[in-house]
Amino acid sequence: MSPEAYLERELPRFREELFEFLRIPSVSAREENRADTARAARWLHEQLLEIGLEAEVAPTAGHPVVVGQWMEAGPSAPTILVYGHYDVQPPEPMEEWTTPPFEPGVRDGRIYARGATDDKGQLFLHLKALECFLATDGRLPVNLVALFEGEEEVGSPNLLPFVEERRERLTADAVVISDSNMFAPGLPSLLFSLRGLAYFEITVQGPTGDLHSGSFGGAVENPANALARILASLHDEGGRIAIDGFYDDVVEWDQGTREALGALPFDEEEYRASLGVAALGGEKGYTPLERTWIRPSCDVNGIVGGYTGEGAKTVLPSRARAKVSFRLVPDQHPERVAELLRRHLRQATPPGVRSEMQVLHGGLPWRAELEGPFLEAARNALEVGFGRRPVLTGEGGTIPIVRDLEELLGAQVVLLGFGLPGSNMHAPNEWFPDAHVESGIRTLVHFYREAGRLGPSG
Amino acid sequence: MSPEAYLERELPRFREELFEFLRIPSVSAREENRADTARAARWLHEQLLEIGLEAEVAPTAGHPVVVGQWMEAGPSAPTILVYGHYDVQPPEPMEEWTTPPFEPGVRDGRIYARGATDDKGQLFLHLKALECFLATDGRLPVNLVALFEGEEEVGSPNLLPFVEERRERLTADAVVISDSNMFAPGLPSLLFSLRGLAYFEITVQGPTGDLHSGSFGGAVENPANALARILASLHDEGGRIAIDGFYDDVVEWDQGTREALGALPFDEEEYRASLGVAALGGEKGYTPLERTWIRPSCDVNGIVGGYTGEGAKTVLPSRARAKVSFRLVPDQHPERVAELLRRHLRQATPPGVRSEMQVLHGGLPWRAELEGPFLEAARNALEVGFGRRPVLTGEGGTIPIVRDLEELLGAQVVLLGFGLPGSNMHAPNEWFPDAHVESGIRTLVHFYREAGRLGPSG
Repeated sequence: MSPEAYLERELPRFREELFEFLRIPSVSAREENRADTARAARWLHEQLLEIGLEAEVAPTAGHPVVVGQWMEAGPSAPTILVYGHYDVQPPEPMEEWTTPPFEPGVRDGRIYARGATDDKGQLFLHLKALECFLATDGRLPVNLVALFEGEEEVGSPNLLPFVEERRERLTADAVVISDSNMFAPGLPSLLFSLRGLAYFEITVQGPTGDLHSGSFGGAVENPANALARILASLHDEGGRIAIDGFYDDVVEWDQGTREALGALPFDEEEYRASLGVAALGGEKGYTPLERTWIRPSCDVNGIVGGYTGEGAKTVLPSRARAKVSFRLVPDQHPERVAELLRRHLRQATPPGVRSEMQVLHGGLPWRAELEGPFLEAARNALEVGFGRRPVLTGEGGTIPIVRDLEELLGAQVVLLGFGLPGSNMHAPNEWFPDAHVESGIRTLVHFYREAGRLGPSG
Repeated sequence: MSPEAYLERELPRFREELFEFLRIPSVSAREENRADTARAARWLHEQLLEIGLEAEVAPTAGHPVVVGQWMEAGPSAPTILVYGHYDVQPPEPMEEWTTPPFEPGVRDGRIYARGATDDKGQLFLHLKALECFLATDGRLPVNLVALFEGEEEVGSPNLLPFVEERRERLTADAVVISDSNMFAPGLPSLLFSLRGLAYFEITVQGPTGDLHSGSFGGAVENPANALARILASLHDEGGRIAIDGFYDDVVEWDQGTREALGALPFDEEEYRASLGVAALGGEKGYTPLERTWIRPSCDVNGIVGGYTGEGAKTVLPSRARAKVSFRLVPDQHPERVAELLRRHLRQATPPGVRSEMQVLHGGLPWRAELEGPFLEAARNALEVGFGRRPVLTGEGGTIPIVRDLEELLGAQVVLLGFGLPGSNMHAPNEWFPDAHVESGIRTLVHFYREAGRLGPSG
């Protein structure tokens, strides 16, 4: 039986297993889900063993890394490392989910669940592509290393040391990652860029305790008002980030890339309407695709202070906090951005309050090599799976490990995403296209097969 | 036995009863405390009956009004209306209370509990002053109307219609209210001004749902960033409120008043240090007392949007909200301020988001007549209770009903407060000075006695 025939036969069971995986609330950011996250790791470990790989759950200072290996294709075949993450974003705000985040179900051809696209659903496609080979041929066409972490959504604090320590055993010719979206339905895509990330928490502290806003209002610098002024100072009128030196390391992209982006089938009006806003925002002089793929940005991800319950409470809060993150582009560096922001805060904080800044998360931006045999194998595979040649696209999000794996392992990274635009990756009602379970696995079967025909260096 | 001797004998029981009253979590703003708030009303009703007044719990569209009456002093004696409120502010943030808000206890001469000063503790002093007369003389020196509402902390939405409807039966020569602080320990005070209030909730709505800040950051106007800009636009560099027309109705106070304020024993450095801040804030050209008593102010009372939990979540929130309130001075009007703010929001809201404004609460500012026999009776009573003549002080907070009762009933309003500065009226660890239970009741006994010697018109 061919791997493809096996896929067709086993698809209903595959979907059941995917749902089982998605039911585990592996929210890495939350202490209360620690046991669930560990359970997701064990689930993966058992899957790898059942499929026929050697596997282990490797502890780290945080959530464990699940490693799998199958090296029997021998030294003449290439080694592919597949990376994925089994942790997910917190599901809040819960009330906005139509069905509960950890009770997956299919509606209108979409599998709704936290992690359906990011990344449990896509990681799962690789597992099943490997199973299709091992269950039919009894072997894989390549040597394979599986590296599945549980801390991607909290900045992968323990992955890099882990990879450094096991460098020898993780050596690979190519790294393949499925943790992104296609550009449009029916339009397969290969990613050529990722933005970096610098994520901070800013706390503005005023009076020692909360005060009555009547008795004290007007004489005391209000930390929530001060925080608002500080946040407002981060942009200028034209939507540019107004931190001294912020653009110093930003490399302008070549005209060819900007033209290629301009040629993608993108309807700005449709994009605007799909978001439900009257107008788009952002930096003057750039298109929306440029603003999200090749230009940096700055967003408040969360803000809280004072009384936020029902009704009116006349309190002058003693502190207010905001989570603020920057998306970075080559050659910006999160540590440099932290330094610039710290300096900016010193200037922007009024005398009556103190501001503190905590670094929560960072990742380097990345830009791909656009040629190479593994990339060509991926192009062919996507054509098999989706019926047309893929386009090259950027991604505004960050997969910090991409650049690290590329540098540490000296491997070409291939980013093969099967999600669709609007998949709500970090929002309520995350979904993955049901049909892509099959076409995704089919694509990956072809990719591994074609990669197997290449030598170790590709 | 004299009322004073009775007070001395019964003081331990009075304190027990006060604690019982403070234990009821009568948080009017919270639906979940509706039954508790009703219980506080019943508790008051029983007290009034036990003391010897006629009383009823009068339902309203919201929390009930408790009314008591004793009119046997006859037409030659004046009628005093005592107003108070049995509802309290929400106690949050709970974790900042040293002991639970609804488990009153004495530490360092202070009774700690939500409502200890604002206003259950002070309302209670009047109950017990009346009891001291009725339990000894069998009569009061004045005709008395007690009017205790349960919605002061949510803007008294039902009190005014209630008073209008019952105007005949509530007619009084003077209104006395104890719901404020003395200027300093040992320095009794009479209030000559209250600021008004205009309290709003501003919601900034961006995209229909939360978005991934990586995929969309830079192309979409972030509602939390936009809200920060809107809030920042409410003040200018000099701490003045930067809303067009906001100061049009502000009456400048006479030089005499400003000099009297300047003569009060106020140590700006001590005030600053007590708040735990490196510098005070506020409008240039005014002292802290002027900023809080005779100048308007604008404070963010609460702000929330996006992810506010543990760790980092890269979300671009679909909306952000802030509670924003203005303290008003004569002759500002909350409805006019609402109109000006609405206009300001139209200008300050960027195209990619919508802002909505909800009016949560409003109250007119007030300025007292400074002469009159009831005021003189209060001065003498405070001298008896605290050993020295009171000073005239302002209050930055709002008691909206003051001006309404003055106008509706044509009565002089006397504001006799027994709290102390730093009583944390709307903050965690609210307290009332234990010794003022006795000296407060003693003052009020003297006040009612001296008022009884006046004719109906004072």
